[in-house]
Amino acid sequence: MHTIAIEHEILADNEALANHNRAHFLAHGVYVLNLMSAPGAGKTSLLERTLAELSPRYRIGVIEGDVYGREDADRIEKHGVPVVQINTGGACHLDAHLVHDQLERFDLDQLDVLVIENVGNLVCPAEFDLGETDKVMVLSVAEGDDKPKKYPVMFHVARVLLLNKIDLLPHVSFDVARATRDARALNLDLDVFPVSATTGEGLEPWYRWLEGRIARAKAR
Amino acid sequence: MHTIAIEHEILADNEALANHNRAHFLAHGVYVLNLMSAPGAGKTSLLERTLAELSPRYRIGVIEGDVYGREDADRIEKHGVPVVQINTGGACHLDAHLVHDQLERFDLDQLDVLVIENVGNLVCPAEFDLGETDKVMVLSVAEGDDKPKKYPVMFHVARVLLLNKIDLLPHVSFDVARATRDARALNLDLDVFPVSATTGEGLEPWYRWLEGRIARAKAR
Repeated sequence: MHTIAIEHEILADNEALANHNRAHFLAHGVYVLNLMSAPGAGKTSLLERTLAELSPRYRIGVIEGDVYGREDADRIEKHGVPVVQINTGGACHLDAHLVHDQLERFDLDQLDVLVIENVGNLVCPAEFDLGETDKVMVLSVAEGDDKPKKYPVMFHVARVLLLNKIDLLPHVSFDVARATRDARALNLDLDVFPVSATTGEGLEPWYRWLEGRIARAKAR
Repeated sequence: MHTIAIEHEILADNEALANHNRAHFLAHGVYVLNLMSAPGAGKTSLLERTLAELSPRYRIGVIEGDVYGREDADRIEKHGVPVVQINTGGACHLDAHLVHDQLERFDLDQLDVLVIENVGNLVCPAEFDLGETDKVMVLSVAEGDDKPKKYPVMFHVARVLLLNKIDLLPHVSFDVARATRDARALNLDLDVFPVSATTGEGLEPWYRWLEGRIARAKAR
């Protein structure tokens, strides 16, 4: 019972600060994306592609969340966008506090979009609201089509599923129809985009979706 | 400070019960493997191959850890070995309590080996001792060769690294030498076996390693 009480308190505290972050983003008209996946699904590669496409037209900032290291921040920095690395030092997810503590490092009036790349983990990040506008998850086809049944919360809370590494489909056993059906059973409104960050295949609809959302955040 | 105190207490409680589990396994001469990886690295497929190879000569039991569902237990059951499914119901790792609660469901005098397949997660399972003899981790080459630097604790605590899905090496960018070097920088004694659960390539040295460890646990 004690454990449940503590967990409830942690999540309630997090939700309060997430709402504070969200109000802050809204006031500045910044669209915020929380990008989540298992380790190695391709979040950073997809982000690099997306930055190359959208950064000529939008002012984008990035927060990189990792347990340790700044490999991903180094990759993102090469694209000429402001990037802040958060190291959780052991924790398996970002939370609203960790994000809040870094916000002063961005001039939100000079941003259209903030992308927060979460720690690679299919479980806990799904439970911690950061104050983002949208949660987007990435599933690599190399991970297998059984993942919606095994990690349902992530599929339930995501607005978009990027089904990445479709260039590997000839070499792995992955049923796109099955994964899509099982994911939509958890989330009727889930938009699913089969893509490859390696070849660029399928990315156009994702870019257009994102542009629509950014425009909506600006208009509010 | 409060958070750190609670975390310390949780890990100390876990360690005490893990040692209790370990004494229990030792008393029955059971070799226990804690199999860990990110989601979709191929733990269950590797386990299925390993059961097909070793179950004619050893009495093997399996505990399947998942957040939700019993997909993996259903797969393992087809191999005719006793299997127990643990659902963490949200938690991103197994702990010594969850394992302890299931031990009465096995007759340990009738087992040579117990394999515990952990929840797919590269972070937290590394911190929770279950009382196992050895921790073995699986990294799929589809996940990328940067993982030792980003998830160092798992590589540090593992005794063996199974570098899985090497059949995909021609199709992904993965430097086996780099991953091996970075993993061994965290763990000098790490044994690394490049394998494919799909084609069976490279699995013989893994089976022989496992047999050596099972024999040693019996002899104690």
